[in-house]
Amino acid sequence: MLENALVNKNKSVNYKDMTKQLEQNLSALQQKIRDKKLPVIILFEGWGASGKGQLIADIIKMLDPRFFKVYSTMPANDFEKRYPLMKRFWANLPEYGAMSILDRSWYQELAIARLEEGISNEEYERRIKSVNIFERQLTDDGYLIIKFFLHISHQEQKKRFLKLKENSSTKWRVTELDKKRHKNYDIYYKQFDDMLMKTNSPHCQWKIIDTTDRSFTKFQVFNVLVSQIANAVNSEPPQKVIPSISELFELVPQPKLSEVRLEGKEMQPSKYFDELKKAQKELSKLHGKLYKKKIPVVLVFEGWDAAGKGGAIKRIGTALDPRGYEAVPIAAPDKHELNRHYLWRFWASLPKTGHITIFDRSWYGRVMVERIEKLTPEERCAMAYREINEFEQELTECGIIVLKFWLQIDKNEQLRRFTERQNTPEKQWKITDEDWRNREKWDLYEPAIDEMIQKTSTAAAPWHIIEGNNKMFARIKIMNIIIDKINEAIKK
Amino acid sequence: MLENALVNKNKSVNYKDMTKQLEQNLSALQQKIRDKKLPVIILFEGWGASGKGQLIADIIKMLDPRFFKVYSTMPANDFEKRYPLMKRFWANLPEYGAMSILDRSWYQELAIARLEEGISNEEYERRIKSVNIFERQLTDDGYLIIKFFLHISHQEQKKRFLKLKENSSTKWRVTELDKKRHKNYDIYYKQFDDMLMKTNSPHCQWKIIDTTDRSFTKFQVFNVLVSQIANAVNSEPPQKVIPSISELFELVPQPKLSEVRLEGKEMQPSKYFDELKKAQKELSKLHGKLYKKKIPVVLVFEGWDAAGKGGAIKRIGTALDPRGYEAVPIAAPDKHELNRHYLWRFWASLPKTGHITIFDRSWYGRVMVERIEKLTPEERCAMAYREINEFEQELTECGIIVLKFWLQIDKNEQLRRFTERQNTPEKQWKITDEDWRNREKWDLYEPAIDEMIQKTSTAAAPWHIIEGNNKMFARIKIMNIIIDKINEAIKK
Repeated sequence: MLENALVNKNKSVNYKDMTKQLEQNLSALQQKIRDKKLPVIILFEGWGASGKGQLIADIIKMLDPRFFKVYSTMPANDFEKRYPLMKRFWANLPEYGAMSILDRSWYQELAIARLEEGISNEEYERRIKSVNIFERQLTDDGYLIIKFFLHISHQEQKKRFLKLKENSSTKWRVTELDKKRHKNYDIYYKQFDDMLMKTNSPHCQWKIIDTTDRSFTKFQVFNVLVSQIANAVNSEPPQKVIPSISELFELVPQPKLSEVRLEGKEMQPSKYFDELKKAQKELSKLHGKLYKKKIPVVLVFEGWDAAGKGGAIKRIGTALDPRGYEAVPIAAPDKHELNRHYLWRFWASLPKTGHITIFDRSWYGRVMVERIEKLTPEERCAMAYREINEFEQELTECGIIVLKFWLQIDKNEQLRRFTERQNTPEKQWKITDEDWRNREKWDLYEPAIDEMIQKTSTAAAPWHIIEGNNKMFARIKIMNIIIDKINEAIKK
Repeated sequence: MLENALVNKNKSVNYKDMTKQLEQNLSALQQKIRDKKLPVIILFEGWGASGKGQLIADIIKMLDPRFFKVYSTMPANDFEKRYPLMKRFWANLPEYGAMSILDRSWYQELAIARLEEGISNEEYERRIKSVNIFERQLTDDGYLIIKFFLHISHQEQKKRFLKLKENSSTKWRVTELDKKRHKNYDIYYKQFDDMLMKTNSPHCQWKIIDTTDRSFTKFQVFNVLVSQIANAVNSEPPQKVIPSISELFELVPQPKLSEVRLEGKEMQPSKYFDELKKAQKELSKLHGKLYKKKIPVVLVFEGWDAAGKGGAIKRIGTALDPRGYEAVPIAAPDKHELNRHYLWRFWASLPKTGHITIFDRSWYGRVMVERIEKLTPEERCAMAYREINEFEQELTECGIIVLKFWLQIDKNEQLRRFTERQNTPEKQWKITDEDWRNREKWDLYEPAIDEMIQKTSTAAAPWHIIEGNNKMFARIKIMNIIIDKINEAIKK
């Protein structure tokens, strides 16, 4: 792709004047970005000395400093390396109506990592996939991502490095790494080209700019920015494609909720306490092993109100080292969370190596409460099955054990528990008017949950439906699944 | 203080039964903590093998996992070291109505750092002061902090280490550092004692527990927890003391706003553009020097609506390397921010070494809008002058350059600018109904601002009042102050 960079400018055109006009346009577009709540990500990749810093300075000169943030991407530090690759990039997403400008980006984890950190071909391809999913998920959510690759020839780079080295105040900017990369220009060229090709997706195309001529470069960059932003704020978002889940993912068949037999799934207290003790001891031991083997775990608890999520989580938590796990209760999103992609807050809570995160409710709110209460447009809810599957698949590919539990009770059992809560003073806080309102919508929720379970029970992260009318039975079943799955993973 | 730890239990008492009752009480108190929105911090410090981990496990066994978080404090990593000492501890504050349990805490930065990292006596005393201010500010805000120091004798520690070493599965827990500390028990004893004495403040007293006897230890810890929490949820908060600012801080006298002469503070455009170019060039150079010298800078912009904060910030931002500064616009706090101490969100935005943070409005909202609009009780607003002065003083003591600007315009000039904004299509978004409402309250704001400027113009971080009726004059004056102050700091 690099050979396509436009080198020759039209000599009869006054690019400087045209750029001036574009600068004014960009400045004026800020307000439209704000009004339309368009989130914009502008990223710069490219060769050393290709002029990224100068172009970023040129852009922000035209912007209100309260409106944008600039991020410089350094190699991941040891702490960041304990998390899935994309976590730190998710963390820096701009809010709707704001702009991020990236001086290098997630692309550092691709070509550069392939050549300099010796990641395998397989890992390289996996990262390519992660990046493509990341960008598609964001653009599907309305983010505008503008990607520049700044290109210069080997000869031009040599010239620029020499010039920098001539001056004592700029000499330090040419590093040993720069020299090494310059020497191996051809190898990097091939690797960059491969990366650009594989990540040049239709929703997010590369703009490859030859930066040999400074004024022509600036014109081209501003021209891309203004036209893409103007297009995004002025046109309706494209019709979204709702993908077929069964074609994209290997699904594990699951029964409908109405087919789950709850009767007879019971346990006597004496047996329960024996089993609980045994399971907790085992879990405690496994937690230590996970820590030593640096394996992270994500546990997801979903289920009807009063199905017993809290009680199950408590029994698990008691068995774990408190320094190695976190229970994350998920409520309705706060304003700053609503102002970003819905997966943003879940990425932020992922466990580091050797740790466990227990989600008490989760991203599945997207296809349950947000769908039933119409908090999110139907179309976006329908797209979530794929997004969620991709998210969970990515976690498992990063080595995280993902276990999802649906706690199933029937309507009568829920009524019994609600009534008991209402009649027990120290349990009253657990029952709210909203619980009663949700209960009235049981028949709306059930088909939605059935669809959710069918469509998100992937081979990578299948659902475990837990018969929950008897709490003791349910807790032991959950703990034993966790123990089995961790044991399997550790043996691998 | 360590010699006061209670060793002898009353042999006729059945502590186990009493502890059981206390465990139930603690569990029940969770709901009260939630109802009363009481934030609770429980921290454990103490000797190696004194049993911190076990006690934390005992406590959380009684709690709902969604209700608390456990933090293990490790030595600050290189990234954390680029920020003021207390930043990472501010970051982990529990929300109102939730609980944090700390396995080691900020106290690691005191005695341990004194003995093992070789910090100077002066720095040690400074940190003692920081910690005392931190804890007082939190308790003044209603936080309950319960501090345990777990004590064992040299002999007992030896016994425990030997027991751990006997077993192959626990052997690894006795580290080289443990051995070193054990060998120098007497030195650590003295240093711990000094630290405990100096941080045993009335609002936040140490509970020193001799942990030789396990069941007695557990009883004592639960007894402290239950009694302190019950006391906090059942009694009215103590009457707050409003301190005398002039006795606590060295203040720099400032004129009242009505005494600030705005007439004649003008600049012609031709001179302005010359001066601006000069100042921006100089600032750009200084930014590089700050980076190399690793000096962080905080710029605070306050002023009347339409006083020109945004324009000034833009001119400064243009001169800076975008990768080395951040402009942080401060709006009304979001829900998750309201759920914590008001300084929490500002600590989160502090610059790292060599970086600049520009606050467009700031923590001064506490004594302006929050006071005038009665969003915060009067008493808490009145306490803020001291808290803010302490905060800024701490930043300067950590080596941050703090510069605060009040942009002053008169009422007529504001009207002129409001009207202009309203009549200029591309500026209309800058003017809202709220601006007009605030303008009506000018006469309420002015004395509040006068008081604020008088009480928070400390020698460490004095206010700079900028005559702002002429924007060009104001911008150049601000930039020259920044340049002078950075030059001063660099020469030190």
